[in-house]
Amino acid sequence: MIKKISHLGVAVKNLEEAREFYRSVLKLESSDPIIGGDGTLRVSMVKVGKVLIELIEPIGNDGVMAKFLEKRGEGFHHICYDVDDINAAILSLKESGMDVLGEPKPGAEGKSVFLHPRGTFGVLVELVEKEE
Amino acid sequence: MIKKISHLGVAVKNLEEAREFYRSVLKLESSDPIIGGDGTLRVSMVKVGKVLIELIEPIGNDGVMAKFLEKRGEGFHHICYDVDDINAAILSLKESGMDVLGEPKPGAEGKSVFLHPRGTFGVLVELVEKEE
Repeated sequence: MIKKISHLGVAVKNLEEAREFYRSVLKLESSDPIIGGDGTLRVSMVKVGKVLIELIEPIGNDGVMAKFLEKRGEGFHHICYDVDDINAAILSLKESGMDVLGEPKPGAEGKSVFLHPRGTFGVLVELVEKEE
Repeated sequence: MIKKISHLGVAVKNLEEAREFYRSVLKLESSDPIIGGDGTLRVSMVKVGKVLIELIEPIGNDGVMAKFLEKRGEGFHHICYDVDDINAAILSLKESGMDVLGEPKPGAEGKSVFLHPRGTFGVLVELVEKEE
């Protein structure tokens, strides 16, 4: 079902300062920021081997990520796994009693869904089926 | 400096229940638990492609991980990056003003150090130089 880790989502208050830390201190380059989450997020991808770190800055104070930062502070937000077939994965997860949040939505990397963190041992999980 | 992500540390309250979730729900196998952290931790590695997820359960109530769980609950704890040369990496990080915690210590995967999370944008960072 799961092939590899696609990316790790990391919440940051200031995207440019975080990108500068990854670039100048860890020597890891990141992509030019794009707007996501229906205009509520600014994101940039840091490449580390074959896995990406998705730096996510909220835009405004009302979105999901702004609320996360307010409650938890900066840091890890979610893990995204690559799957071959997202519909088969959703079926298998529902059979295991997992709460899959909505239908797969098209995103930057492909069709993706999130699992409700209840029952995932504290780690918010996203699954993505990438276009070949 | 950094080659790839070696592992992600995830704090859990009950290692066997977490392993069962990864095995039966996500279809990801994990290694037999071993004792670490001078007897304060029980850990098991989940293999996902070329990256590991280190599930970490505290033993007793006094260790670092027990305190983390009490304060933050279950979830992501740290990210560990593979480096070629840990001494060169430490030198570079100190030149960048990073607070490197102590000297490299031998561990399960090789010599490793942690960076103080102050200045790493909310993500606790470990670096490891693996034995070839």
